[in-house]
Amino acid sequence: MTRLKLVLAYDGRPYAGWQVQPGKDTVQSVVEEALTRILKGRQVRIHGSGRTDTGVHALGQVAHFDVPDGIHMPAAIWRRSLNAYLPLGIRVMDCAVAAPGFHSRIDAVGKTYRYRLFMGEVLPPLEAGIATHHPKPLDDQKLAEACAALEGTHNFAGFAAFRGNEDGTEDTVRTLRSVRPVWEGDFLTITWHGTGFLYKMVRLLTAAVLRVGAGREPLSWLTDLLHRQVPGKCQHVAPADGLYLVGVDYPESTIAPHDTDDSRPASR
Amino acid sequence: MTRLKLVLAYDGRPYAGWQVQPGKDTVQSVVEEALTRILKGRQVRIHGSGRTDTGVHALGQVAHFDVPDGIHMPAAIWRRSLNAYLPLGIRVMDCAVAAPGFHSRIDAVGKTYRYRLFMGEVLPPLEAGIATHHPKPLDDQKLAEACAALEGTHNFAGFAAFRGNEDGTEDTVRTLRSVRPVWEGDFLTITWHGTGFLYKMVRLLTAAVLRVGAGREPLSWLTDLLHRQVPGKCQHVAPADGLYLVGVDYPESTIAPHDTDDSRPASR
Repeated sequence: MTRLKLVLAYDGRPYAGWQVQPGKDTVQSVVEEALTRILKGRQVRIHGSGRTDTGVHALGQVAHFDVPDGIHMPAAIWRRSLNAYLPLGIRVMDCAVAAPGFHSRIDAVGKTYRYRLFMGEVLPPLEAGIATHHPKPLDDQKLAEACAALEGTHNFAGFAAFRGNEDGTEDTVRTLRSVRPVWEGDFLTITWHGTGFLYKMVRLLTAAVLRVGAGREPLSWLTDLLHRQVPGKCQHVAPADGLYLVGVDYPESTIAPHDTDDSRPASR
Repeated sequence: MTRLKLVLAYDGRPYAGWQVQPGKDTVQSVVEEALTRILKGRQVRIHGSGRTDTGVHALGQVAHFDVPDGIHMPAAIWRRSLNAYLPLGIRVMDCAVAAPGFHSRIDAVGKTYRYRLFMGEVLPPLEAGIATHHPKPLDDQKLAEACAALEGTHNFAGFAAFRGNEDGTEDTVRTLRSVRPVWEGDFLTITWHGTGFLYKMVRLLTAAVLRVGAGREPLSWLTDLLHRQVPGKCQHVAPADGLYLVGVDYPESTIAPHDTDDSRPASR
């Protein structure tokens, strides 16, 4: 059995997020439909590294699926075939044979997200839905301090939404390896790199650092929530528009040592 | 009577171009509908510096309209009101009181267009419809020579489509002040600055320089058409996706000397 690892990029605007939902267009369902067309009706489930919400974009979402027995096609041809059937707003950027047992979610050891903000007065039309409009003055120094305070290993329970039962048993400790704000003209991009992220964590943290940067809250408001000095949660969440899943990190061994492009002459 | 000059940016993807057409969504019709809503039902015609085709984008299209008698509103409030009624894909970037008699088309003395190409193998999803995918090898030097050959004053009849009767009476002489290709990673942007452009001229010229750059035609093919050494026309046209109207030049006197922001204390 061959397991393929896909790197997917998508424009999140038309989709109700990654995960299959009845009656809704989702990225996962559109990719699975393309696979079914290639496989002339056979159903295949793909597994993503994690969900992305409605309207969230991806530059490097990772997913895997198992090629049904009896189908022999090089990874490069899978990529081209999928791109031929997918809409232009979803692209397979890379496709490779995965190491045996590779799992896109379980094996992930890190993720990078990016949050893009436009600070000018009028949001340019081509930025609608792919940058968040934030035409409010920000103190660069305060914002940088808030970002730096979040780096490291913390209990992010104050910056997480919960999908199901909130019984306190979910492990909410995560490590943020870096939180980097970069200004470029009227754009501010905050890049979040960590071991993993809780549900809506990037959007809650982005809203929080923006509130500190705008002087609406002191840094201590953020650090008190972060160090669980106070109960409760951040009540602000940044919109999906500006959020991108940039990439997912795996140990080096996740790609099969001989990436089996069957079209190359075999030397077995 | 007050005449206002608008600088408009738009995402051309959902629109059948600039000009009003029965039964179609066009940029002009959407802006006129927003004006009508602001004016509680009164119809106002706006006049653009020129048409843009279906799918063509603008960063700085210029238009003007006459404020109906009896309406007194500062230019800055017009801008905000229009943006409140317009979809996010069309924005008024600037609004100012025009000098008496200003006409966005007749007074234009220059225009700048940009053509964006993505040369990599897989077009990123967020570039779909806003860059043209051209995953073919290009010779930078040949492309640069082709662009340079176009600069200056020429009869561009071989690089124009005609809307109406092609009786040879239309003046097809134009001056290209500069044609600048710029590479940035996998992107190639060609910026066209000239006194004016014939119908589809930028897309025909872009297709032509790309054919020379790709080695599909020699430079002489381009210069023969340009210098009317051979009859006929360029038979290739680059897609609308990559084309942007960047800006329109006017003599300095087109803005009223005292831009009448009525909200400022008057010192009459």
